[in-house]
Amino acid sequence: MSFDVLQDKIRALKNPTVAGLDARIDYVPEHLRQAAYQQYGVGLKGACEAIYQFNVGLIDALCDVVPAVKPQSAYYENLGWQGMEMLERTIRYARSRGMFVIADVKRGDIGATASAYAEGWLCGAPVEGQAFRSFDADCVTVNGYMGSDAIRPFMEAARADDRCLFVLVKTSNDSARELQDMVAGDRLVYQVMGDLCQRLGKGTEGKYGFTMVGAVTGATYPSDIRALRRRLEHTFFLVPGYGAQGGTAEDVQYAFNEYGHGAIVNASRSIMCAWKKTGGDGRDFADAARAAAVAMRDDIRRYVTVI
Amino acid sequence: MSFDVLQDKIRALKNPTVAGLDARIDYVPEHLRQAAYQQYGVGLKGACEAIYQFNVGLIDALCDVVPAVKPQSAYYENLGWQGMEMLERTIRYARSRGMFVIADVKRGDIGATASAYAEGWLCGAPVEGQAFRSFDADCVTVNGYMGSDAIRPFMEAARADDRCLFVLVKTSNDSARELQDMVAGDRLVYQVMGDLCQRLGKGTEGKYGFTMVGAVTGATYPSDIRALRRRLEHTFFLVPGYGAQGGTAEDVQYAFNEYGHGAIVNASRSIMCAWKKTGGDGRDFADAARAAAVAMRDDIRRYVTVI
Repeated sequence: MSFDVLQDKIRALKNPTVAGLDARIDYVPEHLRQAAYQQYGVGLKGACEAIYQFNVGLIDALCDVVPAVKPQSAYYENLGWQGMEMLERTIRYARSRGMFVIADVKRGDIGATASAYAEGWLCGAPVEGQAFRSFDADCVTVNGYMGSDAIRPFMEAARADDRCLFVLVKTSNDSARELQDMVAGDRLVYQVMGDLCQRLGKGTEGKYGFTMVGAVTGATYPSDIRALRRRLEHTFFLVPGYGAQGGTAEDVQYAFNEYGHGAIVNASRSIMCAWKKTGGDGRDFADAARAAAVAMRDDIRRYVTVI
Repeated sequence: MSFDVLQDKIRALKNPTVAGLDARIDYVPEHLRQAAYQQYGVGLKGACEAIYQFNVGLIDALCDVVPAVKPQSAYYENLGWQGMEMLERTIRYARSRGMFVIADVKRGDIGATASAYAEGWLCGAPVEGQAFRSFDADCVTVNGYMGSDAIRPFMEAARADDRCLFVLVKTSNDSARELQDMVAGDRLVYQVMGDLCQRLGKGTEGKYGFTMVGAVTGATYPSDIRALRRRLEHTFFLVPGYGAQGGTAEDVQYAFNEYGHGAIVNASRSIMCAWKKTGGDGRDFADAARAAAVAMRDDIRRYVTVI
């Protein structure tokens, strides 16, 4: 009922980062693709199996360095139901290796519909009185454009099982400003959303002081993150945009509090595609990912000390 | 590259409504549930098969009265990958019966991630240079909180194949006002979103004058719909909230232009669960759904004439 589980894992590895698992087939080295295509043909099934082997290799290489993974649902839905089946397996495997799983689904719907999403992704769906778990993530991302009706059902589903959620507050893309930066009364739209998260989460603070309702706050706007950290002291931050998207360790340091707590920084491409920069043929993808993850950890450690 | 296909289907049936396919197991009559559980056991697989048989019965009963169906992704994700497989079959079946399929996914992400969603739901995913279709809907719903970066990739994917999208502008739930009704400069937040849709869609107008970027505008706020209809004359509206959520035919009439064009009104529970009000055991679910759909059509016809 808070971010304690995640903060504990971060402290154990002294590493406040999360590795994206963005299952793009062109991120997968040639030898894995060819092996899968030979077995399953060139198509959705073959692509899914190639990506699954890639994910397993990444998880094995990262699980004692990085505390969490963040599969991006879009890249699994991209491959249809077979991609979703592979996503279920990926989440199960990551959890079996002790990793915290943030399903980046950015779902945003209301009432019973939001509950249906939350059951599917967090606590399991009821069929004739029994709960059946499917995607079974520790945490999901949520889009709150529809207001608190879109957030509360995820809190209910997360509560039963000490899981949690991140709501989009300030995203890392250019056009985020078109809506999120508008002045609404005496606040900006994204501040309204941030305040809503902290208000809804009130009373669910764990031992580190953070509620179960976290916030996504992009690394491409460091001054905004600094202000949000002051404004939302009980809100855990997921910070995308480090690395390939232009955010630096110097930028993201402001997402953390004085104990180095309260934030986790995501990198996807720079870890998954590290093998493309080694000059090899991709058979070294796991070692390359691990080295990139270690380098990212050490880069962030120059600015942030997790106590 | 517009809403022409949908408007043509609406004109052919003189019925500007869409039936939600919200796959809740407790909406499915007992005889279908028991048959599926006997074959597949009580669990996700059994639930999926029961719902699929229900969906097929509804589609068969509705396809010559109602021009479109709107499956709500949450209720399929709720059942894991097997739910997603069943959703693919449901979409394929509805299209085979000539129905226009609006996949209510409310996805909201940016750049390559949004493209991955759009490929999965609209135009197919590329694997080694070939496109493989999965969910294959005619139209999707999109959440634009992240700005135009979240909308453009869906436009690209839809363009190739004369498909289209609806962006959430003003939703039908109570807490919509927490964010959407805030005053931002000289506009409200939802007006900003509506204006963004019309601006992005500019140049894609079809023979009826509507762009490929539609808007979701809830029926529970009729005065807002009336103002939006005037403001966004080239934007096609998806209007949820009729029936179970409290919107009336009198309310929704303002979503249409002077030709009775430019809007489609959704009802889900009142059609899917019509069998619960006949006093029968549910074996009459298809007839009950058809009667409810005809009644809804006739109710709306009292206020709206589709030319």
